[in-house]
Amino acid sequence: MGDVRDFDGQCCRDHRQFDFLFYALARLDKLEQRSAVMTKISIVIFDKFTDVDLFLMWDLLNRVRIADWKVLILGEKDAHVSATGISVNTHGQIEETNDANAVLFVSGQGTRERIADENWLKKFSLNPEKQFIGSICSGALILAKLGLLQNKLATTYPTSKTLLESFGVEVVEKPFIANGNVATAGGCLASQKLCGWVIENLAGKYWSDLILKSIQPVGEGLYFDDEEEIKRLYVAPTTKAIAN
Amino acid sequence: MGDVRDFDGQCCRDHRQFDFLFYALARLDKLEQRSAVMTKISIVIFDKFTDVDLFLMWDLLNRVRIADWKVLILGEKDAHVSATGISVNTHGQIEETNDANAVLFVSGQGTRERIADENWLKKFSLNPEKQFIGSICSGALILAKLGLLQNKLATTYPTSKTLLESFGVEVVEKPFIANGNVATAGGCLASQKLCGWVIENLAGKYWSDLILKSIQPVGEGLYFDDEEEIKRLYVAPTTKAIAN
Repeated sequence: MGDVRDFDGQCCRDHRQFDFLFYALARLDKLEQRSAVMTKISIVIFDKFTDVDLFLMWDLLNRVRIADWKVLILGEKDAHVSATGISVNTHGQIEETNDANAVLFVSGQGTRERIADENWLKKFSLNPEKQFIGSICSGALILAKLGLLQNKLATTYPTSKTLLESFGVEVVEKPFIANGNVATAGGCLASQKLCGWVIENLAGKYWSDLILKSIQPVGEGLYFDDEEEIKRLYVAPTTKAIAN
Repeated sequence: MGDVRDFDGQCCRDHRQFDFLFYALARLDKLEQRSAVMTKISIVIFDKFTDVDLFLMWDLLNRVRIADWKVLILGEKDAHVSATGISVNTHGQIEETNDANAVLFVSGQGTRERIADENWLKKFSLNPEKQFIGSICSGALILAKLGLLQNKLATTYPTSKTLLESFGVEVVEKPFIANGNVATAGGCLASQKLCGWVIENLAGKYWSDLILKSIQPVGEGLYFDDEEEIKRLYVAPTTKAIAN
């Protein structure tokens, strides 16, 4: 332990008391890590995804200020390129969805290729009993191919309605439909409802209400008087979710 | 010209007729290029920008299907990192804003550093007589520092209101305010109004209406019956804007 000194700057006569201290601190650290169960939210992307569908979800989900709240962009490559050419680095592989608390699928032209790629689909082993699973727009096609929409009502983007119906799904003209832990949203801005559902279930209504308010137009859902409340979204995360 | 053959596959006795043909085609090509005046839309980013403020604008503006419509993300670095850690490559330097038809400023924690950086501010030489200039949320602080909001009404994000007022700007609780060619929007989702304003002015009302409709929630502004119209956003660009 070399030149370890005590608080008075005096060299310790006996380093064993420090050895014990470090040992105790290391044990406490491990205990703390175990008690802080991470809430893991994953967003699945692929090439030719729709930019706003990823980034509206990503931005909203990242506004939750809880220390154990983690949002990850997952894909089968180190980076995926959106329909408009934006390259986005992924944080991990698709297989990481399998132990996430929430798994959200983006949409875009690329979904047509994904639902035809059995090797890609095989990487998912999702469990709607334990995980919150959702999609925006044509992401519903992936949920259907994964067998998550059987005998369920769902929504999607207008240009994907017929194809989704061909998978035996009853498609309803609504922005958001949740069946237990599986939800679909249709129309880019409906990802607010999808994210609100995930946040409310995993972090509490306080956060979903505040976060959804924080992106509304000024004078139309967000007001100058909200300043102090909004500032809570910019402070360091707290270790516990504020109760509903 | 080597082995040039005519339509019957016969080797030409006299290559001069082909030389003339190629010369004429090259001239026509140049003429066509000159007549297709590019509409250049630039979005200015910087480190610690708010993700949704860039990507909602980027996505909407890229939905315009006109061949001469170009959207560029500009910054002072090859890539900028958002407030949540997303790295986005830029398409060019800030100075490129000076000949753009529209210049839009994003917002985020990073605006505070930008408005204190005189070297960065000096790179802009914008002309509100010839360019459409706008901002979302705290981007209004940059417009103010560039002298574009003097004696004008403006809007911004609740947490930036006091600072914007300290620059002598009268801040109004509205989602969108346009003064001639200079506009401010407040609250992330108000970038719909900002982009709609740019698109209507530079591409026509047909495109702004269709594009804004295309991102609404299903059943709340976007309907399954809109499928055929929405498909126009996924075809190859046309060479001319559809008239209002």
